[in-house]
Amino acid sequence: MKDELHAFYQIFTTTKDAIEKFMNILEPVIQNAKDDHERLYYHHIYEEEEQRLSRLAELIPLISKFEKEKEENSFSPTNNEFNRLLQELNLEKFGLHNFVEHLDLALFQFTDEERSTQLNQMRNVSYQDYQQVKNMLNEINAKFDHNYVDPHAHHDEHHDHLAPPGSSSIAKSSQKKKGFTVGSLI
Amino acid sequence: MKDELHAFYQIFTTTKDAIEKFMNILEPVIQNAKDDHERLYYHHIYEEEEQRLSRLAELIPLISKFEKEKEENSFSPTNNEFNRLLQELNLEKFGLHNFVEHLDLALFQFTDEERSTQLNQMRNVSYQDYQQVKNMLNEINAKFDHNYVDPHAHHDEHHDHLAPPGSSSIAKSSQKKKGFTVGSLI
Repeated sequence: MKDELHAFYQIFTTTKDAIEKFMNILEPVIQNAKDDHERLYYHHIYEEEEQRLSRLAELIPLISKFEKEKEENSFSPTNNEFNRLLQELNLEKFGLHNFVEHLDLALFQFTDEERSTQLNQMRNVSYQDYQQVKNMLNEINAKFDHNYVDPHAHHDEHHDHLAPPGSSSIAKSSQKKKGFTVGSLI
Repeated sequence: MKDELHAFYQIFTTTKDAIEKFMNILEPVIQNAKDDHERLYYHHIYEEEEQRLSRLAELIPLISKFEKEKEENSFSPTNNEFNRLLQELNLEKFGLHNFVEHLDLALFQFTDEERSTQLNQMRNVSYQDYQQVKNMLNEINAKFDHNYVDPHAHHDEHHDHLAPPGSSSIAKSSQKKKGFTVGSLI
């Protein structure tokens, strides 16, 4: 469990930085929007990422706390805080998924080299991180065999057709074939 | 607390139906999208609402369970399940907020009478419901004075400039002036 916690910590710290970079890209676009529709569109995406940033500000220290935990039996469904951690991680799996799509949508519109390079880089990292988080949570849920029912399980089944534009599809298909090994994550 | 739980139950049952109606509007739009960008755009919104629907399928029975609770001391921060309920409600406050914006974005594009009438009706109900949920959670958090820190509190401060297009601004400003009274909610 320690290895997974370390991987979660790295992934969510990385994505926190990426959100901030993405918000910096969006800010001038919102300010210079040509009409209300365009302004609402980018502002809406900005706000969803801002909501995610606030949740990560709570989640990252919680991961960190469990990473330092010495008692192996803390990682148990009888520990309410551990259950909370799993629920939050599951929610942020979808947060990562939605972030990939926000980046994909931005890539359709910010086609200049500077922004598209930056967005593509974040997109590929986030897509890989999403896959890793998904795989790790599947393993953890199976391992603990607790009573936690993934409220998104049905939803997630429909998720492998995430359609990335352009170059990203290569990263996607190679990632898809790679099996999950804890060692490969850190 | 019983009155608020009843109001939450009504609001989230209503919004669950509204999500399904909205997804029905989006489905043919996704199928008939003119290009990949348009398809991803609507598919992304569809998926975010689908995620919310999955969460509500867990939350509504939890509200219902607490609504039937006879012990008044169940509504306490020492009850882990009650804390979980408050956290989920706080998350769905943002779910409702984002839904209002999804509807606003759709209103810019689906301008035919049939869809715009339906979307406007959902938009106004959802906006009022968002305000009620926000007010009720503020009251509850103050009342219980528990250690729960709203991870979105900072974010929410920036939220009163939600900019509705057209007719909806009337509902917004009247709603804003109306104070919170439990009696008015049910």
